[in-house]
Amino acid sequence: MKSYRKELWFETRRRREFVHITPEVEACLAESGIREGLCLVNAMHITASIFINDDESGLHADLEQWLERLAPEKPHSQYRHNVGEDNADAHLKRSVMGREVVVAVTDGRLDFGPWERIFYGEFDGRRRKRVLVKIIGE
Amino acid sequence: MKSYRKELWFETRRRREFVHITPEVEACLAESGIREGLCLVNAMHITASIFINDDESGLHADLEQWLERLAPEKPHSQYRHNVGEDNADAHLKRSVMGREVVVAVTDGRLDFGPWERIFYGEFDGRRRKRVLVKIIGE
Amino acid sequence: MKSYRKELWFETRRRREFVHITPEVEACLAESGIREGLCLVNAMHITASIFINDDESGLHADLEQWLERLAPEKPHSQYRHNVGEDNADAHLKRSVMGREVVVAVTDGRLDFGPWERIFYGEFDGRRRKRVLVKIIGE
Repeated sequence: MKSYRKELWFETRRRREFVHITPEVEACLAESGIREGLCLVNAMHITASIFINDDESGLHADLEQWLERLAPEKPHSQYRHNVGEDNADAHLKRSVMGREVVVAVTDGRLDFGPWERIFYGEFDGRRRKRVLVKIIGE
Repeated sequence: MKSYRKELWFETRRRREFVHITPEVEACLAESGIREGLCLVNAMHITASIFINDDESGLHADLEQWLERLAPEKPHSQYRHNVGEDNADAHLKRSVMGREVVVAVTDGRLDFGPWERIFYGEFDGRRRKRVLVKIIGE
Repeated sequence: MKSYRKELWFETRRRREFVHITPEVEACLAESGIREGLCLVNAMHITASIFINDDESGLHADLEQWLERLAPEKPHSQYRHNVGEDNADAHLKRSVMGREVVVAVTDGRLDFGPWERIFYGEFDGRRRKRVLVKIIGE
């Protein structure tokens, strides 16, 4: 069994942002030399997500608005976590969108349906944060 | 390390539907010959989910109603994604329910608690869509 | 390839409770002797979650309140599942928080960012329930 590990770093300009990272993950897979196995991609921070969805800007605007409705950022004082912090909403939004994805690796490629793309979902950005790519297989 | 891959196809009659697929996944596992490992089951489409829950029709009706409250289908015009599309809500519903499950394989069986069952959650059906089963192990 | 399996048992005093289980999962990993691979941790019951977030009591209070707003327990009669049951809300809450996490194992350790901690999320407690830890690798 082979294993491969890499950290990807992100620093978004805005507090909330979705970053398309499929090409970075594909580059990891190529570097790993693994042909059959599983690829885990997870946020290493608890106010960010990794998720798979469509690379379509209208949908991303809908997601942003919808998450803000489910778990509003403001008023900051509505959350007990926000004592010296203002990011409780980011923890909740990340809970909806998920921490990680596991993607099948088949014949040296991410085994995706036609529209599956990997996104880094940042909910408390404007600082450097990490994503872990771990691939195991042969 | 062995690896196994299969696509399962579904075409639901209704726009939204939950389909019990544990037997199909068990058949994949038997075919794979893998006794110890991990089994990934994921929707290959971004308006569908794979999730594990109870096989109980009352609960499925509750889930349907609850998801419709969290992310209503109509009016279609409330979503920016719905330009030539009407399925933005399906992308949001799938975000709640998740894309994938990873199930332990122990002694040649899906290593489940007493009520765990795998479901395909369709949120934009009435066309042929795929689920990927990928198993790795020995 | 090595594989390791262990069940962890929990019985919470309250209906809803978050239990920090990182030390238990680390003990499993040490016992497994696996240095590189993937560690799956999943609830074996469908009214409980495994999730990764911050070990901060204010945040846990926020999560509890937020989940109760998204999927209220009462009135029990609002859910069709609640015929002889009263835990439909627990199934919904667990759907938001997720059934499982997959954690990378690197150099014999859970490969975590600085604040990542594993929690058992109980939504229908006061009885003995199980969590599965399955580790594969080398």
